Amino acid sequence: MHLWRRFLLEFNGNSDAPLQEHPEQVVYGRNAVIELLQTKPETVEKIYLQFNTSHPKLKEIVITARRLKIPCGKARMEKLTQLAGTAKNQGVCALISSISFYDLEEILAAPRNTAPLLVILQGLEDPHNVGAIVRTAEAVAADAVILIEGKGAPVNATVHKASAGALSHMRICKVRSLVKCLDRLHERGFRIAAADMDAEKNHTDVDWRRPMALVMGAEGSGLGSEAMKRCDDIVRIPMAGCVESLNVSVATGVLLYEAMRQRLS
Amino acid sequence: MHLWRRFLLEFNGNSDAPLQEHPEQVVYGRNAVIELLQTKPETVEKIYLQFNTSHPKLKEIVITARRLKIPCGKARMEKLTQLAGTAKNQGVCALISSISFYDLEEILAAPRNTAPLLVILQGLEDPHNVGAIVRTAEAVAADAVILIEGKGAPVNATVHKASAGALSHMRICKVRSLVKCLDRLHERGFRIAAADMDAEKNHTDVDWRRPMALVMGAEGSGLGSEAMKRCDDIVRIPMAGCVESLNVSVATGVLLYEAMRQRLS
Repeated sequence: MHLWRRFLLEFNGNSDAPLQEHPEQVVYGRNAVIELLQTKPETVEKIYLQFNTSHPKLKEIVITARRLKIPCGKARMEKLTQLAGTAKNQGVCALISSISFYDLEEILAAPRNTAPLLVILQGLEDPHNVGAIVRTAEAVAADAVILIEGKGAPVNATVHKASAGALSHMRICKVRSLVKCLDRLHERGFRIAAADMDAEKNHTDVDWRRPMALVMGAEGSGLGSEAMKRCDDIVRIPMAGCVESLNVSVATGVLLYEAMRQRLS
Repeated sequence: MHLWRRFLLEFNGNSDAPLQEHPEQVVYGRNAVIELLQTKPETVEKIYLQFNTSHPKLKEIVITARRLKIPCGKARMEKLTQLAGTAKNQGVCALISSISFYDLEEILAAPRNTAPLLVILQGLEDPHNVGAIVRTAEAVAADAVILIEGKGAPVNATVHKASAGALSHMRICKVRSLVKCLDRLHERGFRIAAADMDAEKNHTDVDWRRPMALVMGAEGSGLGSEAMKRCDDIVRIPMAGCVESLNVSVATGVLLYEAMRQRLS
């Protein structure tokens, strides 16, 4: 499904505005959607349901989607028919993300930089932040952005928009476990960096020219302790004022551009 | 008005949720609000009107507010009565910003840094960006953030929230004319810096330890040509990928932290 189509869907909400059909990007029917949620939940961007969701399977879909943090919207039958390209949609359509997520091993097998640079996001909730970070990662020619499955904002139209198109150029990788991902990166000779306000070294005192993976924690809660234990370089972004931290996408930008500065000089 | 009160107002919209009274921060009555819009428009954060705005003075308020880009909301009489603390509000209440805006001369007369650092925003539309920039400016101990009157997002609750409290610590200055402001800064020995993707120098090749004013243009449109002509240091943030620019709050963060790095080293 083309980008503008997704925006249209996002913005139209429950309206009856005419929609073109792209059935290859839509899965419809109760059993099909349930199976999709069981087998490839990471590909589901949004689910549209009929207004009456009293059918047990529709209820199951709503509950599963909520658990997986997949957004659900209500839609009239006319809209569901348009989306599915058929009236036999049983009151449910799932929109599939057009992003092909990469596997960690694929990224490691085909690095783009001599000293690869990875950005790992642990459960960022705000799609504007995720989009802005993908945009910055693309601007510094990072190798990939790694997301944790089922955590944080889905890679939806808002992320697309906030990334200003960078999402189409940046390899996005999904991993099941952050800790296992970090262990695997260690095996492959990466150093893991994270930001912490209590760190002893400034971000400018670390050598960013080596193979590096920068892990950023969620807004507010920050990085978990299991992940923090695995970090080789815990750095502080100097704060000369009263606030204790920066917006997470600004902080990521400051860190990635320090890496860029060192790599260019 | 306390911050959480403003959020409540922002989020409640037209609802009848109970509201505490803070009449000292509310101006009510048709003539009073018209006069406020004529004399101190920069202090008005939001205007609430009754649903029926056919009265000529209410119409005048709506038109003036639209021109000044002040958000207007409709409210039931009960809510207006609560806001004003009286039923004699004539169907209109204006919420006053709790921020005291500084005058440029006040900032120049009381610098916080030996080599002052100013951040000037020309009409940024997204309050999340304005808030994130105020947060970053506070973190690098900038002297002030300068906004242009009547341009860009109002300094509202969203800016407050996105600034993570920094708005209470950072001096916010409003000026009528960006060009006059830049001329005045030149008189006072400031160098004016701006980012442009076609610039010849990288942002790391400029000496940020001098008295500096960084001007950031609006999302999308960038900085106007009159302002650009007055810039001494036009810098490029290196972009190694396909996207042409960064999110404006990320770009500001990268530039301010380059200034910080140079000033600390």
